[in-house]
Amino acid sequence: MDYAKESLKMHYDLKGKLEIKCRAAVDSKDALSLAYTPGVAQPCLEIQKDINKSYELTRRWNTVAVVTDGTAVLGLGDIGPEAGMPVMEGKCVLFKAFGDVDAIPLCVRSKNVDDIVETVRLLAGSFGGVNLEDISAPRCFEIEKKLKECCDIPIFHDDQHGTAVITLAGVINALKVVGKKMEDIKIVTSGAGAAGIAIIRLLISMGLKNVIMTDRKGAIYEGREGLNPIKEEMAKITNKAHEKGTLAEVIKGADVFIGVSAPGTLTQDMVRTMAKDPIIFACANPTPEIFPDEAKAAGAAVVSTGRSDYPNQVNNVLCFPGIFRGALDVRASDINDEMKIAAAYAIAGLVSDEELNPDYILPAAFDPRVKDAVAKATAEAAIKSGVARIK
Amino acid sequence: MDYAKESLKMHYDLKGKLEIKCRAAVDSKDALSLAYTPGVAQPCLEIQKDINKSYELTRRWNTVAVVTDGTAVLGLGDIGPEAGMPVMEGKCVLFKAFGDVDAIPLCVRSKNVDDIVETVRLLAGSFGGVNLEDISAPRCFEIEKKLKECCDIPIFHDDQHGTAVITLAGVINALKVVGKKMEDIKIVTSGAGAAGIAIIRLLISMGLKNVIMTDRKGAIYEGREGLNPIKEEMAKITNKAHEKGTLAEVIKGADVFIGVSAPGTLTQDMVRTMAKDPIIFACANPTPEIFPDEAKAAGAAVVSTGRSDYPNQVNNVLCFPGIFRGALDVRASDINDEMKIAAAYAIAGLVSDEELNPDYILPAAFDPRVKDAVAKATAEAAIKSGVARIK
Repeated sequence: MDYAKESLKMHYDLKGKLEIKCRAAVDSKDALSLAYTPGVAQPCLEIQKDINKSYELTRRWNTVAVVTDGTAVLGLGDIGPEAGMPVMEGKCVLFKAFGDVDAIPLCVRSKNVDDIVETVRLLAGSFGGVNLEDISAPRCFEIEKKLKECCDIPIFHDDQHGTAVITLAGVINALKVVGKKMEDIKIVTSGAGAAGIAIIRLLISMGLKNVIMTDRKGAIYEGREGLNPIKEEMAKITNKAHEKGTLAEVIKGADVFIGVSAPGTLTQDMVRTMAKDPIIFACANPTPEIFPDEAKAAGAAVVSTGRSDYPNQVNNVLCFPGIFRGALDVRASDINDEMKIAAAYAIAGLVSDEELNPDYILPAAFDPRVKDAVAKATAEAAIKSGVARIK
Repeated sequence: MDYAKESLKMHYDLKGKLEIKCRAAVDSKDALSLAYTPGVAQPCLEIQKDINKSYELTRRWNTVAVVTDGTAVLGLGDIGPEAGMPVMEGKCVLFKAFGDVDAIPLCVRSKNVDDIVETVRLLAGSFGGVNLEDISAPRCFEIEKKLKECCDIPIFHDDQHGTAVITLAGVINALKVVGKKMEDIKIVTSGAGAAGIAIIRLLISMGLKNVIMTDRKGAIYEGREGLNPIKEEMAKITNKAHEKGTLAEVIKGADVFIGVSAPGTLTQDMVRTMAKDPIIFACANPTPEIFPDEAKAAGAAVVSTGRSDYPNQVNNVLCFPGIFRGALDVRASDINDEMKIAAAYAIAGLVSDEELNPDYILPAAFDPRVKDAVAKATAEAAIKSGVARIK
């Protein structure tokens, strides 16, 4: 199928992928008096007395804002807020279809960090959570950090954390396949964007000790000249041995490669220098760092990509709907590392030990068990870590 | 029915009066590839090339933001953004049910004019129009003015302009009932809030020459001490004869009274001093300035209130859904006076000369002809006045 052509036609035909559905009738005088004035004054007064009632008397409990500034949309780059809307509407469709979450797309006409923070902060009373989407690095880190400080609802940047969760789920099961343990292995990553950084952070909080991050200039280490503040920060928590050199040099002996960078970054020769049974996550989209058949021919034990036409697809749709479902269900004030790790284990756990094999480390995108499993694990972790406001 | 009690129960049962409905399927790999990545890149690129395509390839063409800061919600006053949400959700239900418009409630956590303006301005690319709601005067005037200057989509404050349009429609037909003409009559109004001011402005742009505005201190005239900036402005365009005195004094000889003020403001004695066949709009809610039976006993020829249990209900639901429907249909950049006046005539025109009588000057709220009639008239006026971007 010519997706570009067919998708364009579909978008012209649909004229929008979302619409509003009314849950209250206003087809009689009485109905109108209940859904609107004068009756509606009563729920208003209840919320005025106790603001938490906004989660019971309005749709806030189930509503998430999907916020972008259009600066890093898909692989298209900075195309602007209006041009980002088809993706945001699509994301909202996924929220509803895979998580029963009502998501509303908001595309902000500013690239200024404080503008975006302020816009979301001022609207936080209308939503139960915020999903940041397709905002370019390093601004996305700052926006997320500032919003987490000033908002009382979960702030989640899916490009970072959704990707990190599903990658972690994949790593958990891939390590099972090859019989290795997180604390014993060496991981080398390629790509210092939002996803790459979030993946490393989550892996470290999971117990990973030996990880080297690389960018186009090679290994990132403390003291490397010209590092931006984020890379400087990452240099402090990675590459404890201060290894220097290109990807080809530092990947020697690594157990796992995780790429969220560019097509063709990983060569067969590099794979051949890795430790026994190398695990490859080649997530550049749509063209991966190395194609699965090439990687396998060079000895890879497990290969995962972002593509649906190969096994082991790393697909965020497996996590963000369930994570938000779980967070909303317990009215969480945050989506923290405990919740993300719990979600990753829940996803990994859907592949039984009997089913687990090099070509099946992650459940399929349409596996109907995913939402409930992820939501349950996320909600439980929220309760356990003290960010749930109802149980 | 005990509306307060029943409405509260209904709100607890519903858990929100709105939800998101998906217009695109994502139930197969192909469907996902069209509604989302990779296919969705193509509509994004089309909008990047021509931003107007956002009206064709996303739901923007039919989506309106309903924006409040919660400072003037119903008659409840400043109850805050979260507590205003049940009304905003209700408003959005009315938009959909009576105008086929997808409306999204946004409650802003600030009372600062510039904060609210900036929030809406930055989100204007996600919407086809903005309905300001329940924002207290005089901030509502400033917010509306600033937004009209900086946004390329219609900004409409329904409390002002919706009320003005439906009142104008009522005045048009009431004058027919008593056989008088707009340019010959004297109108006295009570109440200097958002609605009162908008009504006078629209009546003047319709040809009304003689209008006196009163507040709690009596007639507003140029040079009266202690007038706020808005009242000063109104003093310049009303009360050309510089009449001074209380409502009881200046109402003598008036043909029409329009109250958007407080219960009991108008007495039977005052009605008796008005011109022959006085017309009374007593729109304070839920208790009017004078009750219809009292007004009639004192000689009123036509009486209109905001209540659904008396004839001639002045109800904004007759206009804002159709006005936005019409504005969106022609992608109007503004909702101007020409469009409002056209909408008022369209509403008035739904009462035929044969049907017209003192107890039937306005169509009923559920008259199924209203939406299309108002939308058509509004759209035509938008085209004629040069603010339509498609025809």
